[in-house]
Amino acid sequence: MTAKSLDVVGIGNAIVDVLVKADERFLDDHGLTKGTMALVDEQQAESLYGSVGPGLETSGGSAANTLAGIAQLGGRAGFIGRVRDDQLGGIFAHDIRSVGARFDTPAATSGPSTAQCLILVTPDAQRTMCTYLGASVGLHPGDLDLAMVAEAKVLYLEGYLWDSDEAKQAFIAAAEVARANGGEVALSLSDAFCVERHRDSFLELVDGHVDILFANEMEITSLYKANSFEEAADAVRGRCRIAALTRSEQGSVILSGDQTIQVEPFKLGPLVDTTGAGDLFAAGFLHGYTQGESLEACGRLGSLCAGAVVTQMGPRPQGSLKELVASHAQAA
Amino acid sequence: MTAKSLDVVGIGNAIVDVLVKADERFLDDHGLTKGTMALVDEQQAESLYGSVGPGLETSGGSAANTLAGIAQLGGRAGFIGRVRDDQLGGIFAHDIRSVGARFDTPAATSGPSTAQCLILVTPDAQRTMCTYLGASVGLHPGDLDLAMVAEAKVLYLEGYLWDSDEAKQAFIAAAEVARANGGEVALSLSDAFCVERHRDSFLELVDGHVDILFANEMEITSLYKANSFEEAADAVRGRCRIAALTRSEQGSVILSGDQTIQVEPFKLGPLVDTTGAGDLFAAGFLHGYTQGESLEACGRLGSLCAGAVVTQMGPRPQGSLKELVASHAQAA
Repeated sequence: MTAKSLDVVGIGNAIVDVLVKADERFLDDHGLTKGTMALVDEQQAESLYGSVGPGLETSGGSAANTLAGIAQLGGRAGFIGRVRDDQLGGIFAHDIRSVGARFDTPAATSGPSTAQCLILVTPDAQRTMCTYLGASVGLHPGDLDLAMVAEAKVLYLEGYLWDSDEAKQAFIAAAEVARANGGEVALSLSDAFCVERHRDSFLELVDGHVDILFANEMEITSLYKANSFEEAADAVRGRCRIAALTRSEQGSVILSGDQTIQVEPFKLGPLVDTTGAGDLFAAGFLHGYTQGESLEACGRLGSLCAGAVVTQMGPRPQGSLKELVASHAQAA
Repeated sequence: MTAKSLDVVGIGNAIVDVLVKADERFLDDHGLTKGTMALVDEQQAESLYGSVGPGLETSGGSAANTLAGIAQLGGRAGFIGRVRDDQLGGIFAHDIRSVGARFDTPAATSGPSTAQCLILVTPDAQRTMCTYLGASVGLHPGDLDLAMVAEAKVLYLEGYLWDSDEAKQAFIAAAEVARANGGEVALSLSDAFCVERHRDSFLELVDGHVDILFANEMEITSLYKANSFEEAADAVRGRCRIAALTRSEQGSVILSGDQTIQVEPFKLGPLVDTTGAGDLFAAGFLHGYTQGESLEACGRLGSLCAGAVVTQMGPRPQGSLKELVASHAQAA
C-alpha cells in the first residue's frame, strides 16, 4: 500500500437513528420484515413514529457507524455523507467528529431534513429498520471531497447508496479516484432487500470494482440466489480479493484466494440490540487490515467490535473500543 | 380526595437530554461539581458540547421524567412545559405522549430552541448536568392549562422552575388553582445548587404551600443548612404533610406527622447511570399515593422505579415499568 494520510474513508447515508422497543405484532401490523431495512417516505416515517413508544436518538448510518468505529479504534478515518443544517444534522456531525473522524461534507441549507432511521428492537434483540433518506439522498458527485478519497488506503462504500441515483454516481466516481490513487475499494451489501433491488449492479461491482466485500448470510445468498450459505460462499470466492461474510452467532468466514478462515464470535454479555453488528464488524476488520494485520487477526478484531456493540442499545459502542481491544490483547 | 380525571399533573422544564460518558478530569477542567446541575447559556452549551464525545439523545426534564413514569405505571398523567417547534421539541412531545401522558402546551414558534441538558456520566455512574433552558424559560402563566391542573389529584412541581421568573409565576398560579380545587401540591427540590439559589422561597413554599416534598440528602441538608441528614429530617418534620427523602444506596425515609418509614433500595442490576433516579422515585411514590396505597407501599414503589432506571443509560426506563411492578408484586 502506498503511503496515505488516511486509513479508511467511507461514503454513506448520514442518518440519525431513533431506537424504539417494539414487539413482533407491531412488525406484523405494519408489514415489516424482521432484520431488514425498508425505505419510507416522510409521511410514512411520521405515521410510524406516531405509533411507536419513546425513542433513544443516536447517530447512525451504516458506513458512518463503521468509520466512527475505526476512529474509536485509533484509525485515521473520514466520512462523506449529506445532512441538512438542522438539529439532527448537528448531532450527526458532532458525534462523528467527536470520535476523531474527519467529516467535512457541507450540510444542505434547503430541501429535506436530515435522514432518520426508525429502528424497532424486538425482545429477541433483532433490529428492523425504516429509513427516511431525507437530505442524504441528495449527495451528488460535487459533494465528494476527492482529495480525501485519494488519501485513503481503503474507500468503504455502503450498498444502501444504490437507493439514490445521485449518491450512486458519487459512489462510482469515488471508487475510480480511489483506484487511480492506489487505494482499495470495500463494499458492504448492506441489506438483503437492498441486494434484491440492485442485484445486477452489485454483481457487476463485485466482479469489477471491489477488493473487499462485506456481507451477511442473507445478503450473500440473495446476491447469488443461492440455496445455502456454502453455495453462496463458493459463488463469491475469487470474484473479489477478500470476502468477509458474517453469520451472527455462528461467527464469520473470510475468503481470500483458496483460503477459508473461520472466525469465532465474541460473547461479551447479554444480547441487547443487534443494531450496528455488521457495521462494527467491518470497522474492526478494516482497522486491522489497514494496520497490516493478518486476515485472521482482522476477522477477530471485527468479531470483537461486533460483540461489543450488540450488548447495548444503539449502533455505536458507548464504551471505549481501544480499551476493549487492549484488554483482549492481554488476555490472548 | 375528590373525584378527578387525572392522577398527577406536572409542571417543569421540557428538556431533551444529551447523555455523554466523561471522566472526572473533564468535570474538573470545566469547573463542574459532580452530581449537580449547572445552568449554561447557549454559547456555553455549544462550547461544552463541542468538547465532549458522542451522545445519546433522549427526552428528559425532571418533572417530565416523573410524569412519563407515572403514565408508564398506568397512572393518568399530564405534563405542562414549553418546547420550541423544532426537531428536539418534536422528540420531546412524541416521547411523553407515546407513553400515554397528556401534553398539550403549545410549542413556541419563535425564540430560543428547545431546552437541552448535557448529562456527563462518569465511570462511577454519577451524572453531572449542564442545562441550557432555551424555550422552557418562556413558560408563562398564560401557557398553563388550568383546567388540566384543576383535574389533578396531585400537582407536581420541580424546583428547577424557580430559575425562571416567568415559570415561577406559572408555578404559583398553578398551585393556587390545584389547592382551590381540592388537589394537593407536591414539590421536588431538584438540586442542591438550585436550593442554594432559592432557599428562602423554598422554605416559605414548604411551610405554606406544599403537601408532599421530595428531596435527596444534599438538597434537604442544604435547605435547612443542616450538618447531617438526621438534623435536616428533624427540621422538615411537620412542616409539610409528607416528606419523602431519598438517600441513594441507603434507600429513602418517609416522614409524616410523627411517623418515620425507612424504605430499602432495590438493586436490580449493575449501576450504569443515576440520571432520573430521583424523578422515578417520585413517579413510583406518587403513583402509589394517587392509587390510595400506604406510605410504606408508596415508598417501596418509588424505590423500585428508581432501582430500574439506574441500571440503564438515560432518565426514563426503557423496559416496561408495569411488568416490573407486576413481577415484584408476585415475588412479594
